[in-house]
Amino acid sequence: MALIVQKYGGSSVGTVDKIKRIAQKIKGYRDNGDQVVVVVSAMGGETDRLQGLADELESRPIAREMDVLLSTGEQVTISLLSMALRHAGVSARSFTGWQVPIVSDDSHGKARIQSIDPENLRSALDDGDVTVVAGFQGVTENNEISTLGRGGSDTTAVALAAALGADECQIYTDVDGVYTTDPRVVSGARRLEQITFEEMLEMASLGSKVLQIRAVEFAGKYGVPLRVLSTFDDGPGTLITLENQVEEPIISGIAFTKDEAQLTVLGVPDRPGIAYALLGPIGENNIEVDMILQNVSGDSSSDFTLTDFTFTVHTRDFDAAKELLEKSAKDLGARDVSGQAGIAKVSLVGVGMRSHANVAARMFKVLANENINVRMISTTEIKISIVIETKYLELAVRALHDEFELDEEPKKVESELTPSADQG
Amino acid sequence: MALIVQKYGGSSVGTVDKIKRIAQKIKGYRDNGDQVVVVVSAMGGETDRLQGLADELESRPIAREMDVLLSTGEQVTISLLSMALRHAGVSARSFTGWQVPIVSDDSHGKARIQSIDPENLRSALDDGDVTVVAGFQGVTENNEISTLGRGGSDTTAVALAAALGADECQIYTDVDGVYTTDPRVVSGARRLEQITFEEMLEMASLGSKVLQIRAVEFAGKYGVPLRVLSTFDDGPGTLITLENQVEEPIISGIAFTKDEAQLTVLGVPDRPGIAYALLGPIGENNIEVDMILQNVSGDSSSDFTLTDFTFTVHTRDFDAAKELLEKSAKDLGARDVSGQAGIAKVSLVGVGMRSHANVAARMFKVLANENINVRMISTTEIKISIVIETKYLELAVRALHDEFELDEEPKKVESELTPSADQG
Repeated sequence: MALIVQKYGGSSVGTVDKIKRIAQKIKGYRDNGDQVVVVVSAMGGETDRLQGLADELESRPIAREMDVLLSTGEQVTISLLSMALRHAGVSARSFTGWQVPIVSDDSHGKARIQSIDPENLRSALDDGDVTVVAGFQGVTENNEISTLGRGGSDTTAVALAAALGADECQIYTDVDGVYTTDPRVVSGARRLEQITFEEMLEMASLGSKVLQIRAVEFAGKYGVPLRVLSTFDDGPGTLITLENQVEEPIISGIAFTKDEAQLTVLGVPDRPGIAYALLGPIGENNIEVDMILQNVSGDSSSDFTLTDFTFTVHTRDFDAAKELLEKSAKDLGARDVSGQAGIAKVSLVGVGMRSHANVAARMFKVLANENINVRMISTTEIKISIVIETKYLELAVRALHDEFELDEEPKKVESELTPSADQG
Repeated sequence: MALIVQKYGGSSVGTVDKIKRIAQKIKGYRDNGDQVVVVVSAMGGETDRLQGLADELESRPIAREMDVLLSTGEQVTISLLSMALRHAGVSARSFTGWQVPIVSDDSHGKARIQSIDPENLRSALDDGDVTVVAGFQGVTENNEISTLGRGGSDTTAVALAAALGADECQIYTDVDGVYTTDPRVVSGARRLEQITFEEMLEMASLGSKVLQIRAVEFAGKYGVPLRVLSTFDDGPGTLITLENQVEEPIISGIAFTKDEAQLTVLGVPDRPGIAYALLGPIGENNIEVDMILQNVSGDSSSDFTLTDFTFTVHTRDFDAAKELLEKSAKDLGARDVSGQAGIAKVSLVGVGMRSHANVAARMFKVLANENINVRMISTTEIKISIVIETKYLELAVRALHDEFELDEEPKKVESELTPSADQG
């Protein structure tokens, strides 16, 4: 008997029929003797409908009242799913955020969970109930309704799993797991059986939008085993854990994003404060910056050292960022500003590269063989990212997928630490 | 400066535009220095939409979860109206049932209010906020969401007015007050300036569906001055009070209902328990009984006294009730069962008739003059009801309206008890 937290997103509960199907799925776990906590989002489209009503007011939304409004979406789902479960012969009980209670700070619209008292849920679980909890919402210490922001239901599920000491937190989505790369680009892309939290964070932030980053961080922090799997197809999905127990590849996956733009300030006098002088105005205008690089330009014709400063933004922010940058560059006495929109970023992600020094070399060799020019390079302990022209994106991803044999199942680790009882 | 509780029903808040108009109306009271508590229903159609989702489950609804579902309707309205008020420059704050808190018993779907702690509302009012409260809902002692049943928003408003000691409870509807009778039947029907709680109860239960009966009972019990008025037309509406201070008519109004059916058991042996034996099976089949009459039939040919037992039901229940009654009548040894569907009930209502003994005589004279046969008569201290054939309904109502001069403004009462300061 295991204690499992399951989370179903908006598209999984988009219609009453789908809610009925999920009830059958949950019944399977109960019949197996598991205790189940279900976290649900609003029915697909409902949050947009509610937002639309607020938009009709044509006034600036009031954060406190928007939370009162939007939190009704999940409340509708918990009641319908609880009724569907009861109809399927499964004893069930719904919980809003305040009924759990899930206590958050008072940052309405983007609140953070501060504490969860698991006693009410535990008591219902001990009574044999499936507990159906509204995701995305909490209650402040002043008894006000809060929401965790869009996608916050993943975080709710992980936080509940941590508070209850659950055996596994299952995130049901419309994909059947995390892949080595986008299957639409590389036909040989393979579902990963396992991936570490660190790798998942790099994959998620790089565009493989399966899970909310905050939820993965939270799960990693509290050591909650997280599994991504498909709502309506059977299959084991992908398990996200602290240590990869099953397979040990060098590279776990290849993430990529298009629509990036690169901006470079050439020949900036290298003195303290220039990064802030250049990026400050960008941030103040709510433009998000991705990669940041700084190189000494080695201009020997000058009395003092000059540097080149480069960063990337989304293509939609390119013109605005360039204009701001040209002003700052002039004030700083920089030589020039150059830019290039429509570029792409490709990242190799894998904890295995920690112990494999030649990963970068193999990567650059592959790109050289394909005549792909690398515009920027940035690395972390478990990731190498490069920026290239968008037209080479698919070519690069496929070549790298081949080079690191990501289409092949990795060998199983024959660990003596794994007791054979776990195989059953 | 007065403390006013206002209630707006589903059609008054049916669209975002209407919510904006109500915000302007409330602003008028605030600008006048009044403190305002607003109680709102779900947006028109929303409760039916939510009910429809539950119906799609094709399972018996679970009362506890239906309350979780339906209570979201009012929660949407309080958030939208609070935002609309803030946009109109009026400081406002929303309250769900549990946030007030409005504590109810745990009869889900038809809960009764047990207590209201007014401190949170009072504190917000003292801060200068308009408080916007979700009608129709409460919270049980176990922190479960309850609903007071359809139309319960009127009761919420009256209960809040009582708990806060409000100066007036205003119920906004799509009519501009309580009329002497239905204006569609009698063109001279006149809006009443005042009516007593007792009269209003008789009027409401007899088909003048302006207010929920429970709300009127509640207001009468706690002496809360209640005013019925129109949401989108200006005007003073009708004030419902303990004592009629302004006018003293003999008759306040004429209520009527169609679609009644009369059932009579003839010649029942008159012994204890026959009423229960006849009505028990009717009630068990959820058939609502209206008037009940029993007359000794005076059948002198028998050894023991016989009685005739008559009651009315809605026409839709006529066949089912007749079938049940025929079985019971046979068991009791009654002589026969007769029935008549498609009859109508007309009631004169007025506290003034207490001191005017000849009201009944005048009523029957009018009906006799019009050749209308009276099938049943039933009286209370402030009401005389008769049952007649439906085809005579309009004729009877118009003739009675004329006879009691209901189209004329009653004379003002020149009471020495009314201090002249009240006139200002």
